[in-house]
Amino acid sequence: MTTASYLLNCWYASAWSDELDAGPVGRVLLDQHVALFRDNTGKAYAVGGRCPHRFASLAQGKVAEDGSLQCPYHGLRFSGDGRCVHNPHDQGHIPDVSLPTWPVRERHGLAWVWFGDAVQADPALVPDFSFMDESKWEIIRGVIHGAGNYQLFTDNILDLSHAEYIHSGLSAPAFIDGQRQYRSDGTAVWCHIEHPNDYVSDVMAATFDVVGRRQNFWTDIRWTPPANMLLIPYLNEPGGTRETAKAAPSLHLMTPETAGSTFYFWAVGRETRLNDPEFTEQMRSGFIHAFENEDKPMIAQQQAMMGGKDFWDLEPLVLKGDTGAIMARRKLLQLLREEQTAAGD
Amino acid sequence: MTTASYLLNCWYASAWSDELDAGPVGRVLLDQHVALFRDNTGKAYAVGGRCPHRFASLAQGKVAEDGSLQCPYHGLRFSGDGRCVHNPHDQGHIPDVSLPTWPVRERHGLAWVWFGDAVQADPALVPDFSFMDESKWEIIRGVIHGAGNYQLFTDNILDLSHAEYIHSGLSAPAFIDGQRQYRSDGTAVWCHIEHPNDYVSDVMAATFDVVGRRQNFWTDIRWTPPANMLLIPYLNEPGGTRETAKAAPSLHLMTPETAGSTFYFWAVGRETRLNDPEFTEQMRSGFIHAFENEDKPMIAQQQAMMGGKDFWDLEPLVLKGDTGAIMARRKLLQLLREEQTAAGD
Amino acid sequence: MTTASYLLNCWYASAWSDELDAGPVGRVLLDQHVALFRDNTGKAYAVGGRCPHRFASLAQGKVAEDGSLQCPYHGLRFSGDGRCVHNPHDQGHIPDVSLPTWPVRERHGLAWVWFGDAVQADPALVPDFSFMDESKWEIIRGVIHGAGNYQLFTDNILDLSHAEYIHSGLSAPAFIDGQRQYRSDGTAVWCHIEHPNDYVSDVMAATFDVVGRRQNFWTDIRWTPPANMLLIPYLNEPGGTRETAKAAPSLHLMTPETAGSTFYFWAVGRETRLNDPEFTEQMRSGFIHAFENEDKPMIAQQQAMMGGKDFWDLEPLVLKGDTGAIMARRKLLQLLREEQTAAGD
Repeated sequence: MTTASYLLNCWYASAWSDELDAGPVGRVLLDQHVALFRDNTGKAYAVGGRCPHRFASLAQGKVAEDGSLQCPYHGLRFSGDGRCVHNPHDQGHIPDVSLPTWPVRERHGLAWVWFGDAVQADPALVPDFSFMDESKWEIIRGVIHGAGNYQLFTDNILDLSHAEYIHSGLSAPAFIDGQRQYRSDGTAVWCHIEHPNDYVSDVMAATFDVVGRRQNFWTDIRWTPPANMLLIPYLNEPGGTRETAKAAPSLHLMTPETAGSTFYFWAVGRETRLNDPEFTEQMRSGFIHAFENEDKPMIAQQQAMMGGKDFWDLEPLVLKGDTGAIMARRKLLQLLREEQTAAGD
Repeated sequence: MTTASYLLNCWYASAWSDELDAGPVGRVLLDQHVALFRDNTGKAYAVGGRCPHRFASLAQGKVAEDGSLQCPYHGLRFSGDGRCVHNPHDQGHIPDVSLPTWPVRERHGLAWVWFGDAVQADPALVPDFSFMDESKWEIIRGVIHGAGNYQLFTDNILDLSHAEYIHSGLSAPAFIDGQRQYRSDGTAVWCHIEHPNDYVSDVMAATFDVVGRRQNFWTDIRWTPPANMLLIPYLNEPGGTRETAKAAPSLHLMTPETAGSTFYFWAVGRETRLNDPEFTEQMRSGFIHAFENEDKPMIAQQQAMMGGKDFWDLEPLVLKGDTGAIMARRKLLQLLREEQTAAGD
Repeated sequence: MTTASYLLNCWYASAWSDELDAGPVGRVLLDQHVALFRDNTGKAYAVGGRCPHRFASLAQGKVAEDGSLQCPYHGLRFSGDGRCVHNPHDQGHIPDVSLPTWPVRERHGLAWVWFGDAVQADPALVPDFSFMDESKWEIIRGVIHGAGNYQLFTDNILDLSHAEYIHSGLSAPAFIDGQRQYRSDGTAVWCHIEHPNDYVSDVMAATFDVVGRRQNFWTDIRWTPPANMLLIPYLNEPGGTRETAKAAPSLHLMTPETAGSTFYFWAVGRETRLNDPEFTEQMRSGFIHAFENEDKPMIAQQQAMMGGKDFWDLEPLVLKGDTGAIMARRKLLQLLREEQTAAGD
């Protein structure tokens, strides 16, 4: 694994909550082996993924009846607080070993893990994706594992003009032609794109049920560090008010596996064409196609073409459309330095 | 290839004898390219696997009529003593080159190779697995190639309690509940497990033809350096004498390919249910399943989770059941140091 | 990618011209990402393959209507001289960036690229393979991508005695038994093999339509740096004159991708059995089989057995049949040193 710098004092989306319902989940996150699991009360935990005995992957084990995580190799068990709680050998003598642990909070259907100073792990810092909890939205979601540094995945969302070039099914010239505005707000970066009174892409028109009708179109994207994005496209009849606009809120959360690979959690809500399972499936497979077959290979290729070099060392050309992505990269760099300086005190 | 330290003045199982009957065998052993072959009298040799002319793999060639090993690329031939004996070019002029050679002894159906000082290659030092030569045992055997340092494969055999967790088909609580004793005897390490008057696992009961009957059960394991094990489970009717016990001797020989990969030669004999080809096949496929699908992925995963670090540097938790494995690791380390000190004189 | 030394002031075969007819071609050549494409007038260009904006692979894009190469990710366009000529963002503002470019010449059906000092890129230095342009020859051709340093591919052609050992379908003892002569001529190396009044291999006999008839056989091979070969076998009726001989000229051009992998462009012409599509296909599939399934795995294996070491450091045995290959290796080494010395002035 490469040695990389990650922002530590923040919450990282680490699994969909229902992934944990199906049993322990083993992931490398920020270059560390992590085992995520629920105890027998349903509470979620994140512990070091490597058994201290013979280094087996604990997440390949199972949750025992007592709610502890049992090693698949020799049966040692560890509770969510990292303590060894059961030893089937040595007449039950409990060895004095424990696993690293990290705070976990479940919110918005996701298990979030804090890799920094546990004392600072304030649940209120989990970024707000409230739409996930509102019944008005019909939501599809998933997780993608892809080659490429997580910031390349961030760039991809913060400059949606790529849709015109790589997403033939989602083609959206508004992301090129629209007026863009950028602003920062604390540690957040906001991107706003506006394109009034025009036809929208076929997929968007179908999703919003406005085929053949001109629309006022705008999109808001909120980036919060390290790599979490809320993205909401809005459509409105020309002349309509903000209240009559329809939205399709989405989340795009990038969690580094290593410096060169990423878990990408995504979800998209809609308030139109509800209770239409066939359309839901069509939409789901359309998004999965776009993420898996269009974004993911492009980003893997970027990563490969960068040849192991640092993004800034390659002196990338910066276009106006990159403003949001560059603001986010700079903010993250600043926070990283601040955190490292504080840690060095 | 990694640079690793291996014990050199000892015999390594390198191929089943009948593998050589089918033609030259090319293997990396102890980080070195080795070509094993039989000459036209049937005598087995181990020579350097790389042609000195254009570096082709000699083992991809064939044994010529004169009993020499012929390079697949340009037809140079080498005899078992490493000398070039035929040059189809240069009007037959024999170039003054030779291959590295290593002593080979065939015993117990295996070709053993000595990678150290050839003068010390005493055939009497080939470890004793006489059961392989006794007609009373019906034997199944094979060889597995797996990721993982050879000492992880050793650990796996010397602590059989893992069977309860990873070998659902061989589940054997006796390896957890039994009384264990360990002793060293010269350079050998012996492990003894004893569990009287209980039911044995289904597979063991079937193999020994004692389904539904309580048995006195014990197992002896003999480790000799660098990584060769004789493992004999015994079953006896409670109250029976040592003479009436039935055994199922097995060998488990680990030969390093590299620091991170291993050839695992195995054989299992039985004295029960003889001449039952259907049961033999069932037993063979059962063992192959356990080795290939249960042990091998677990050990590959250990190796991966260790992240290239040294076993001791990771400060493994040591349980009582690891005593044999730890004794073996320490003995091997001591022998390695002695050998290296002697070589440095 | 490895850091390697390549001769720079020379033309490298980089693509078949008709590969470019089908759209941009992306290749790593001499460790560099190169995008080859034709503009809308059909002129061929070689530019740096990595977009300066977000490092996407330009060759995965398309040629736009204006003849420029359009990035697949965000639509920037670059002309063949490397300049950015279109920006769909920023109200069309053209950023001040450009791509590396290399001179390209098309000759003999191939696009040749010059990676050295562009001022020295004299089209007259493209090596002469005029047979490719003569209508009398019916030509088959292709390109192979293989593991192995390009000089191993050169060695393979300059010592054809390997045919007897690895090309069962092309078996040609004449390459072992024939008289060989070698000479250098400027920077070229010539190999000549002669074997009069004997039967030729089945494939050669079929190709030349001389099945069952003894022939005078000779072959000329011309190597020019860095790794381009003209290879012409000739057959003649014993007693015939040079004028009555039949030839089957071929080219074998090795272009390094990296220090450990190579593009191998090949073509074979014949003047016998013309207008016989079935025989043409048989010949094509025969050559592809020999290159892909016999030469390529052997060279990949050599590369692997060399374990990352330098060819000369491994002290290869040199046979008389290697004379041509060794002369070529030494000449190339001399030219490399001269070029590097000149560059250092």
